[in-house]
Amino acid sequence: MIRIGLAGYGNLGKGVEQAIKKNPDMELIAVFTRRDPSSLTISSDAAVVSYNDVSKWQGEIDIMILCGGSATDLPEQGPELASMFHTVDSFDTHARIPEYFESVNTKALEKDHLSLISCGWDPGLFSISRVLFGSILPDGADYTFWGRGVSQGHSDAIRRIPGVIDARQYTIPVAEAIEAAKGKDRPALTTRQKHKRECFVAAEENADLAEIEKTIVEMPNYFADYDTTVNFISIEELKRDHDALPHGGFVIRNGETSSGCSQIAQFSLQLDSNPEFTASVLTAYARAVYRMAQDGKRGAISVFDVPVGMLSPFDAASLRRDFL
Amino acid sequence: MIRIGLAGYGNLGKGVEQAIKKNPDMELIAVFTRRDPSSLTISSDAAVVSYNDVSKWQGEIDIMILCGGSATDLPEQGPELASMFHTVDSFDTHARIPEYFESVNTKALEKDHLSLISCGWDPGLFSISRVLFGSILPDGADYTFWGRGVSQGHSDAIRRIPGVIDARQYTIPVAEAIEAAKGKDRPALTTRQKHKRECFVAAEENADLAEIEKTIVEMPNYFADYDTTVNFISIEELKRDHDALPHGGFVIRNGETSSGCSQIAQFSLQLDSNPEFTASVLTAYARAVYRMAQDGKRGAISVFDVPVGMLSPFDAASLRRDFL
Repeated sequence: MIRIGLAGYGNLGKGVEQAIKKNPDMELIAVFTRRDPSSLTISSDAAVVSYNDVSKWQGEIDIMILCGGSATDLPEQGPELASMFHTVDSFDTHARIPEYFESVNTKALEKDHLSLISCGWDPGLFSISRVLFGSILPDGADYTFWGRGVSQGHSDAIRRIPGVIDARQYTIPVAEAIEAAKGKDRPALTTRQKHKRECFVAAEENADLAEIEKTIVEMPNYFADYDTTVNFISIEELKRDHDALPHGGFVIRNGETSSGCSQIAQFSLQLDSNPEFTASVLTAYARAVYRMAQDGKRGAISVFDVPVGMLSPFDAASLRRDFL
Repeated sequence: MIRIGLAGYGNLGKGVEQAIKKNPDMELIAVFTRRDPSSLTISSDAAVVSYNDVSKWQGEIDIMILCGGSATDLPEQGPELASMFHTVDSFDTHARIPEYFESVNTKALEKDHLSLISCGWDPGLFSISRVLFGSILPDGADYTFWGRGVSQGHSDAIRRIPGVIDARQYTIPVAEAIEAAKGKDRPALTTRQKHKRECFVAAEENADLAEIEKTIVEMPNYFADYDTTVNFISIEELKRDHDALPHGGFVIRNGETSSGCSQIAQFSLQLDSNPEFTASVLTAYARAVYRMAQDGKRGAISVFDVPVGMLSPFDAASLRRDFL
């Protein structure tokens, strides 16, 4: 049994707890939280422990899965926990990945651990697809589309507008752009051509709806470069119809192997729950980290360093016989 | 520069020759053929050499890519060339992969080489998708669809019928079945539901067309379990409209991460040229074999053993910065 620890118990942590139930070779040993442990009710028999006591669990946990956020939790917890455990995390601030890698790598090497950073679906499976497809079709163009799915960052941006009670923002890939991405001419697609944004907003009773809508659609970085539609609905409707966190997307490589010979590779996801799927990716990679650590691998690694066979509960001979 | 040798110069070998032109870190050194070398005109400056002299090229070639057929060429050449070179091949007789692996592994280990077997898109990329998706979504069902594309085996089966001059058979995935594969009920789909077969046949002048059609649609193993349509056309039309070798397909994993929470992962290919794409996969994996051999890896391996980063011309730090 692979003994798993969880650092953090938000949507992602709860998803890992679910995922472990689908993997009979794993067991959840403990959930570490910065909240008061007695305030946390979890869905399994694992211990609930204060994050302050995490160092005492060295030797009890094979792989620590980090479920904190990339903005403030992981930059601190990533290196800290890599000095105590083999780890898996989903650090997703793209621009800061090189420095995050260095800080985790230093601690992991210092204390003889293995740490997989930036795992999930993007970064993660989408990243693998881009490298795999680009290596096979070096003469080609990449297209990534996200959605239809909820963007938490965009939903939060709307919630900060005065007069807004709550909001949900869906990122929607434009069907015509997906088709165009597969065309022989490999078109350059603008931000506006690729995605549109759809907002569902519950506003206060006397709020100026026209003003809220204008603030949204003109918001720089978040909405100004997109075609955005705003729908005002009641808070009851918002909770009833927009409580889930679906997401998904496409990575398309449109390449050519000789003149005029078009080859298209595509990876796509259609997810009822973004956090549960991301959690399932982390869980499968926890198995790989467990095995690679047993094989003596140390330091920080990314999904690019993990052979796919390491993710599977089946051994190499079975995989060759049944899946190759 | 990675120095490549080619064993075999059919459609696949020609495809590798094209692929190498797209990869500036590789050069084609020599093509080895069982035909009279002077009878072969190739599209590059490489040497054309009799297969009988292949052993003399040890030390001149880093990776030998095997482009022979799985029925008779590879069972002999696979182990033979693994004793002389690091190799990559596309052995695709699924049922015989375990024994083929053993025979190549024995020779490769004996002579200190690394050999990647059964590479391409199926086996190959499709196999990777099945293992990746199944590891992430252990509670789920797999669906593989092939096409629309030319099946050489089925085309050959038609050509053996008396009265047939030439033929082309297209395997066509049924759109409704692809949709059904993504349904919450994870339906069991029959052979007939998943694919249909479309045949274009050029017959001799006085041939009994009704008899040929009956022989095709009732042919056991090849056509009897499918809905098959037969179109008789002239040999000129056949050559004009059906000379290409397009193919493609889908690997779909329809899984659930918690009760009622559906998660769908899909990998798909849409290929103008099946042999050129397969060749491009072999070429990218040749780079990985070159590097893994430099790192000291020996014996036979499959695509399941290769980290995706090894396929790329970019180094690990660049991949993390630009693709993660």
